[in-house]
Amino acid sequence: MSSAETTLAADRVHAAGARLAVEAARFTGIGWMRGTSGNISEVVSRDPLRLAVTASGLDKGELLPTDVAVVGPRGEAVAVEGVLPLRPSAEAGLHARVAALTDADAVVHVHALNAVVAGHRWPGGVLLRDVETLKGIGRLAHDDEVTIPVIRNSQDMDELGDWFEAAYDPRTPAVIVADHGLYAWGTDLKHARHVTECVEWLLAYKLATA
Amino acid sequence: MSSAETTLAADRVHAAGARLAVEAARFTGIGWMRGTSGNISEVVSRDPLRLAVTASGLDKGELLPTDVAVVGPRGEAVAVEGVLPLRPSAEAGLHARVAALTDADAVVHVHALNAVVAGHRWPGGVLLRDVETLKGIGRLAHDDEVTIPVIRNSQDMDELGDWFEAAYDPRTPAVIVADHGLYAWGTDLKHARHVTECVEWLLAYKLATA
Amino acid sequence: MSSAETTLAADRVHAAGARLAVEAARFTGIGWMRGTSGNISEVVSRDPLRLAVTASGLDKGELLPTDVAVVGPRGEAVAVEGVLPLRPSAEAGLHARVAALTDADAVVHVHALNAVVAGHRWPGGVLLRDVETLKGIGRLAHDDEVTIPVIRNSQDMDELGDWFEAAYDPRTPAVIVADHGLYAWGTDLKHARHVTECVEWLLAYKLATA
Amino acid sequence: MSSAETTLAADRVHAAGARLAVEAARFTGIGWMRGTSGNISEVVSRDPLRLAVTASGLDKGELLPTDVAVVGPRGEAVAVEGVLPLRPSAEAGLHARVAALTDADAVVHVHALNAVVAGHRWPGGVLLRDVETLKGIGRLAHDDEVTIPVIRNSQDMDELGDWFEAAYDPRTPAVIVADHGLYAWGTDLKHARHVTECVEWLLAYKLATA
Repeated sequence: MSSAETTLAADRVHAAGARLAVEAARFTGIGWMRGTSGNISEVVSRDPLRLAVTASGLDKGELLPTDVAVVGPRGEAVAVEGVLPLRPSAEAGLHARVAALTDADAVVHVHALNAVVAGHRWPGGVLLRDVETLKGIGRLAHDDEVTIPVIRNSQDMDELGDWFEAAYDPRTPAVIVADHGLYAWGTDLKHARHVTECVEWLLAYKLATA
Repeated sequence: MSSAETTLAADRVHAAGARLAVEAARFTGIGWMRGTSGNISEVVSRDPLRLAVTASGLDKGELLPTDVAVVGPRGEAVAVEGVLPLRPSAEAGLHARVAALTDADAVVHVHALNAVVAGHRWPGGVLLRDVETLKGIGRLAHDDEVTIPVIRNSQDMDELGDWFEAAYDPRTPAVIVADHGLYAWGTDLKHARHVTECVEWLLAYKLATA
Repeated sequence: MSSAETTLAADRVHAAGARLAVEAARFTGIGWMRGTSGNISEVVSRDPLRLAVTASGLDKGELLPTDVAVVGPRGEAVAVEGVLPLRPSAEAGLHARVAALTDADAVVHVHALNAVVAGHRWPGGVLLRDVETLKGIGRLAHDDEVTIPVIRNSQDMDELGDWFEAAYDPRTPAVIVADHGLYAWGTDLKHARHVTECVEWLLAYKLATA
Repeated sequence: MSSAETTLAADRVHAAGARLAVEAARFTGIGWMRGTSGNISEVVSRDPLRLAVTASGLDKGELLPTDVAVVGPRGEAVAVEGVLPLRPSAEAGLHARVAALTDADAVVHVHALNAVVAGHRWPGGVLLRDVETLKGIGRLAHDDEVTIPVIRNSQDMDELGDWFEAAYDPRTPAVIVADHGLYAWGTDLKHARHVTECVEWLLAYKLATA
């Protein structure tokens, strides 16, 4: 862990934490963050890259604005004066890789059942086309072949990040980690929320009609 | 866009917007307006035809009374003094066609999963008969053959409107747009809500028993 | 309609109406009273038999204590001084028959999807045995053959009531009306709620394992 | 029932009761405690073993802090001064056996549909492996064969407890009682909640992919 940074204000981190808490409570209500699963992050600095991410091991339905950790580009904890050094999820490493590669400023990771079932059924990627809801993830409603990539699960975030980068298509703001869950991202938390909801709907639709 | 109309009061538009917000939050809670999908409208003037419709691109679970646009018969934005010129959804064009053809004063469009799945399974229309809930859409519980029409999806609202008119049966207050979602309507917003709920139930029932 | 009764106080009817509103809002939240479907009743007098029943045509998620009608043994509206003469549902006739035959003081009718699907699949009755939840409807968890009767749907409440009486087994506090919905009853509203929930669970379980 | 104990303060029991009420309302909202089914307990004393357990026959969505009973190692009611002698569920006997054998300080029993369906489908135990959510029950996400044991149902808590002990694997904090429901446990109520949620998710996933 690097020494405490003075360029990043605790206020900014806690404001992000408050936004993360609201989003997490929403997803918990839908049933996509059972147990203490899932995590959500927001980029709070681009240079150097810093993400505020929900702290590990907590119930995502009742987070406080201070239940947040700050991480750097490889998901490593970064000390910020005035911010409690809570443990970030190991998965913060993938959040950071997503933010760095895609320019997304918000990343959502949920254990949405339909996403894991779809990843199990189509381990080579989930093909979608000719559905209006594709517009909700920035694609076309007609004649646009969209593949939600599926990558293997790993506990090694460097490995997982490499697989993500190899599978990444800049046109598709989501990836399924097989046997695990869904990552989706957007320009801000609300956008990431909407992308997450649309991807999950598309996967449910695919499962119901395939 | 025409010049600002003085015959339509901003108060009336915003009162409609408040009602639309409540209905949209309700449908969002059921999961039928994921992402920023779906839209709801209320006729605020018949001559000339004007609809208040939820503005485009917003989360339908947290609309304000002012998150509303006013459109004319082809879904074109209409300026109203005191009403912010928010962008109406392109789909407002179909709302206006429905309102004009059916005399309904409220139209609901949702991405209810069961409706899109049923449209995929029965692209020629979904046949329903001998179910009590048909009374909830103005039909009979016995010996009444009801077809929920299914029309193809299009991004051209004129084309979509023409297909709707060709498929329209005055006895049936709903249409499925294939690969897209459900439209349902009623004499006011509450009636349109009830029709929407009953049609979705009927489609879920059909899928579970067919 | 008989002349206004003085033996039944409006206060008692409206207190029942308040209880009915709470129960109806609860079932609406679960999705069992879509549109304006379903109704709930409470016996407010045994001699003569009088039931307070949710008024017809209203959204069951937002009833007021005054959204209640009073009916007699055949579901006919009974005038009570101080109680608005709202239209009872036609189905109040079956509520009254249930109350008269079973001694139940509360009857619930919901359009629970699983009940209608089960009635469609097993038109001769739904057989259940060896499930703990059977205790929740007053039966045994082991070696007790329970049949939830299924009767045909009708718009004639006398006919429907006769079919109910023919199918009635005093040990089983519920009946499925095919192509329609579920009736369940208990000693008071809370008991009827619990029976309704348990029967629906049992039918969902039966559908998932048959 | 033993004479009233003075070593256990009513305050402690009611504080536990308040926590049990919150957890029970949460599970009721998810639909896992329909009717008056299910119960939750917290160990309030280890020597002698005493559990605070939700009282029998009540709606688990609206418990008060005082809707709690105190039981000993075989589920027998224990009188505590200042605590109303409410009837504990018969199932409190299994809660106590779980607490004694596993050292868990909180036990959850719910009638989660997926658990009972999984127990019906795999009466010899539900095999799970290679799923990230296994970490939520203390197991590994990779190459760890996990079996959720399934034991037969019984109304005799001694028998049921013996079967539980025979099936118990210290690495697995849950057991399915066939034709009945799920038991899960943890170091405190929140942990038990998270284990319960993760086990249910895993069983739903297994059912969807098997």
